[in-house]
Amino acid sequence: MQIGIVGLGLIGGSLALDFSSQGRSVWGLSRSRATCEMALSMGAVDTAVTALEEIPQLVQTEIVFVCTPIAQVLPTVQLLASHLPAHTIITDVASVKGAIVQSAQAIYARFVGSHPMAGKAEQGIKAAQLGLFANCPCVVCPSEDVEALALVRSLWTGLGMQVYDCDPHTHDQAVAWISHLPVMLGASLIHACQQECDPKVQYFAQKLASSGFRDTTRVGGGNPELGRLMAQFNCEAVLTALSQYQAQLDHLAQLINQENWSAVQNYMENAQTWRSLFLEKSTH
Amino acid sequence: MQIGIVGLGLIGGSLALDFSSQGRSVWGLSRSRATCEMALSMGAVDTAVTALEEIPQLVQTEIVFVCTPIAQVLPTVQLLASHLPAHTIITDVASVKGAIVQSAQAIYARFVGSHPMAGKAEQGIKAAQLGLFANCPCVVCPSEDVEALALVRSLWTGLGMQVYDCDPHTHDQAVAWISHLPVMLGASLIHACQQECDPKVQYFAQKLASSGFRDTTRVGGGNPELGRLMAQFNCEAVLTALSQYQAQLDHLAQLINQENWSAVQNYMENAQTWRSLFLEKSTH
Repeated sequence: MQIGIVGLGLIGGSLALDFSSQGRSVWGLSRSRATCEMALSMGAVDTAVTALEEIPQLVQTEIVFVCTPIAQVLPTVQLLASHLPAHTIITDVASVKGAIVQSAQAIYARFVGSHPMAGKAEQGIKAAQLGLFANCPCVVCPSEDVEALALVRSLWTGLGMQVYDCDPHTHDQAVAWISHLPVMLGASLIHACQQECDPKVQYFAQKLASSGFRDTTRVGGGNPELGRLMAQFNCEAVLTALSQYQAQLDHLAQLINQENWSAVQNYMENAQTWRSLFLEKSTH
Repeated sequence: MQIGIVGLGLIGGSLALDFSSQGRSVWGLSRSRATCEMALSMGAVDTAVTALEEIPQLVQTEIVFVCTPIAQVLPTVQLLASHLPAHTIITDVASVKGAIVQSAQAIYARFVGSHPMAGKAEQGIKAAQLGLFANCPCVVCPSEDVEALALVRSLWTGLGMQVYDCDPHTHDQAVAWISHLPVMLGASLIHACQQECDPKVQYFAQKLASSGFRDTTRVGGGNPELGRLMAQFNCEAVLTALSQYQAQLDHLAQLINQENWSAVQNYMENAQTWRSLFLEKSTH
């Protein structure tokens, strides 16, 4: 099976490494010549080019993974649609689905929306890693093309992912809570700490920040473009989640202000208990 | 040198392991007989007892580390003051200093306030770890007892910690930002996610939560008693930090609501840049 990957960053590069290690033929497309060369030297791809026209035997490609930033997914599907043979399937990896799936399927019927929930702090092909997707969850969105859906599901499963079928709207609301909101609140924590006006307090805050601050701000202080695109392409769900989050913060601040320590204790105990509902499956 | 440790949890137990590995004589005091036995079997202490009266040759103790929960520090200092010889020094490890240092020094002149900023998700003696404190920051508060201050500083430095001299009030404001606020906002994130009323969205939020959610909520979903005590004993600074944090969140929500994507991008870029100001020294 020949697999194409457009966009050779962390996700595209890691996908290429995984598929190549399975003995599949993989081509990669990147705007950057240096990225193409690195993908080749890592053994992630058989062919890496900067223009679709340069791919030899494009007709043999069974599926293309669009791994560009969110804003480039639809233009890329448009470009691929004008070059690919009709049998080829297209999927993507974008962290929003409502803004993409329906439009992409209107452009190209054999499009299936995917969202593999894997990542790390570093970006780019240099950070690509064999096995990045193993044991992580992956959403696949509904499609009337049953054959395309089955292939996409089986490829993600083959990388060790736990695949969930989920419609784009539900997906976007769910990831607003557990993926996009953490970015917004981590970024705001860094801003708030940085706005402290007493230079002595500021100095010690910087010197004393340790693993708690590091972990809480990891995604909020990560890739700025990704954070902006989450807000931009999942605007409604992110604003709803932000507003409900602010209501929770108000409630906690009120309990502290009232010196209601048993209620604060109870709030913290619930947080500890409920957290495991969101994370327990990662141990399976 | 004989060292005493009151409270054999994660911090007390790890301290005992470190000091024992340096060849020092260490006694431990815990309310729990099982904890005492575990500390002995781990080789963390030479003697472990459940009552101060049972410690042989208490007169030889040069310094006692109070490693109890925050609320027990002052009662413990009071208890120690009535048993220790006048030459013994007392220090603590509590994450607030304003509520402790002055009162403890009034009870016992040779008290020096400390706050080693080290930890992990697990609690209790079972989680104790050799080298837990290495390369982490530690605050030591001013004292007129120059000799006591020098001993406390040198013992922390000997564990590989970066020691900072900081007055209690400044310390409490700084840790409100980088240690206590992350707990409050992580706990509120878990509450907000759990309040989602659409069961389908709730289901997928739980299934799709991955490393971003895990890291952002690690301290917020940690030890509930510690979270409550931070709020209780550092109430004023925590409320100030919460309020300024909420203003930052409001600002970000407004930018998103205005669809001002270049400003959101800029907000995320600043977060990424500023984060390194708080974390860069951890690579030294």
